[in-house]
Amino acid sequence: MYREQIKVLDCTIRDGGLINNHYFTDEFVRAVYKALSEAGIDYMEMGYRSSRKYAPAGDFGAWKYCDDDKIREIIDGIESKIKLSIMVDAHRVADQKFVEVDKSPVDMIRVATYVKDVDKAIALVHKCHDLGYETTVNVMAISRENEFDLTEALDQLAQTPTGTVYVVDSYGYFFCEQIEYIVKLFQKHLPGKRIGIHCHNNQQLGFANTIEGIRHDANLVDGSLFGIGRGAGNCPLELVIGFLKNPKFNIGPILKVLQDYMIPMRDEIEWGYMIPYVITGILNRHPRAAIAMRKTENKDKYVEFYEDIIDPHD
Amino acid sequence: MYREQIKVLDCTIRDGGLINNHYFTDEFVRAVYKALSEAGIDYMEMGYRSSRKYAPAGDFGAWKYCDDDKIREIIDGIESKIKLSIMVDAHRVADQKFVEVDKSPVDMIRVATYVKDVDKAIALVHKCHDLGYETTVNVMAISRENEFDLTEALDQLAQTPTGTVYVVDSYGYFFCEQIEYIVKLFQKHLPGKRIGIHCHNNQQLGFANTIEGIRHDANLVDGSLFGIGRGAGNCPLELVIGFLKNPKFNIGPILKVLQDYMIPMRDEIEWGYMIPYVITGILNRHPRAAIAMRKTENKDKYVEFYEDIIDPHD
Repeated sequence: MYREQIKVLDCTIRDGGLINNHYFTDEFVRAVYKALSEAGIDYMEMGYRSSRKYAPAGDFGAWKYCDDDKIREIIDGIESKIKLSIMVDAHRVADQKFVEVDKSPVDMIRVATYVKDVDKAIALVHKCHDLGYETTVNVMAISRENEFDLTEALDQLAQTPTGTVYVVDSYGYFFCEQIEYIVKLFQKHLPGKRIGIHCHNNQQLGFANTIEGIRHDANLVDGSLFGIGRGAGNCPLELVIGFLKNPKFNIGPILKVLQDYMIPMRDEIEWGYMIPYVITGILNRHPRAAIAMRKTENKDKYVEFYEDIIDPHD
Repeated sequence: MYREQIKVLDCTIRDGGLINNHYFTDEFVRAVYKALSEAGIDYMEMGYRSSRKYAPAGDFGAWKYCDDDKIREIIDGIESKIKLSIMVDAHRVADQKFVEVDKSPVDMIRVATYVKDVDKAIALVHKCHDLGYETTVNVMAISRENEFDLTEALDQLAQTPTGTVYVVDSYGYFFCEQIEYIVKLFQKHLPGKRIGIHCHNNQQLGFANTIEGIRHDANLVDGSLFGIGRGAGNCPLELVIGFLKNPKFNIGPILKVLQDYMIPMRDEIEWGYMIPYVITGILNRHPRAAIAMRKTENKDKYVEFYEDIIDPHD
């Protein structure tokens, strides 16, 4: 699938950080940065820029905050053309610092929002845009939104300076047909905007749904190394690169960082295809109940978990 | 997705047997039989009926041969409406015994064939059909066949009494668009035949491609518990049942057998998403090189493996 406009964003550190409170070592983040740069990936997301008011220092690693100086430490001395992005939750903006883009190592700010918070997202888009950043708006959990509310939010976003609006299948619920429907709905309500696609892997459809997005002209595509991410994780970056035949990409450095870092990491932190995430995916639910049960001794009691979810007796 | 004609076949014991030389315990096979029966699955495949000439006794477990008496031992005393199938390789027919269908616990014989062996497959179809069995022909490795040879084979199969011809993506190579193309090609050359779909999971597309088959009217659909099968394995049965909304299916017994048997089994035998299988999938190769390297101490040396495959210096 060659289309020059397609750009790939790696969210290994950002989405992966959700399963280890953003405590990745500098060595690891540097290795990922180097590998992605050599592989020709377009963007690397370093983490969240969270407020220390909502996310107290001490509870989280550096990639919860993505201070510019911390990012500079990582990238120092590595030759790279990759652009860097950070994510900010629209509903958790407080004391975060944003400087003008030419004084920051960050190129793009991705505003994550629920439909109900779209006005907050729009305010943040304007602020970031005025500082010179590229922006995206990532509309989360859309499989639980009704179309009236969703399209109203999209119509508002159409009026903003943001360049890209993302379809985010937070619950790993959608099948390919639904991705086609949603991407076309976004296109209809966001004339001239680039569409992004960020899929979760609860039903092993992260990659398939990403391809489906690409087929329908989504041009900013998320993946993560070995699919690392909260719960069932994301679309695996290595599969995206195997699919896209653009000669600018090189899979070798990705295979290397997989073997050197990602496979050993799987012994320390858990993500990927597991039945509790299948269940929340099929039922179109937030994975939090599955994440919680995976931390208990009943982590493989699927029948109880399923019955409790479909009929919680409350 | 409700369509009354869709039938689901579980190939846990048969395809799973390829990774443990068909040594499943009777207890396990009974548990699977019971669970699939309670879940309303249409067919269960018990294994291969191989010739002891090609597969010497002592080298393999019972499910390499699927003797009728052995099958009877398993199903004895369990109430079930499930139909039983066995698979036979068209190019390895010798001294296997087949009795008339009403003297056998087997309902369906699936003839696995490469395009080059289609004449052998046709001979076996006639033999099985004359004994009263339902038959299918499973055309393997089609992603490496040229269309001239493939359609010639399909045109021949169109003239046989077999009821179903399967699209088998043995190498886990196809994307959804290619599945659509191939399923339509099969339909064109096999008027009136049912189309089956059997997908491998090298690129995490087993389930997505199965859905794509279903969307284009494939009506016999393979899956296996937790996707067990050679290499990257198959389309996970639990996802198929989550997708099909036919009320005859019941996911509870499947969740139970997953937690009781399949998850513990993952600690003993290996299958599923692994980078060497991604590589053979992307490159449209048989997984044998990946299977072999996974048994060595270099099992996670992906870069070497990739370089050796794309440029083997021979």
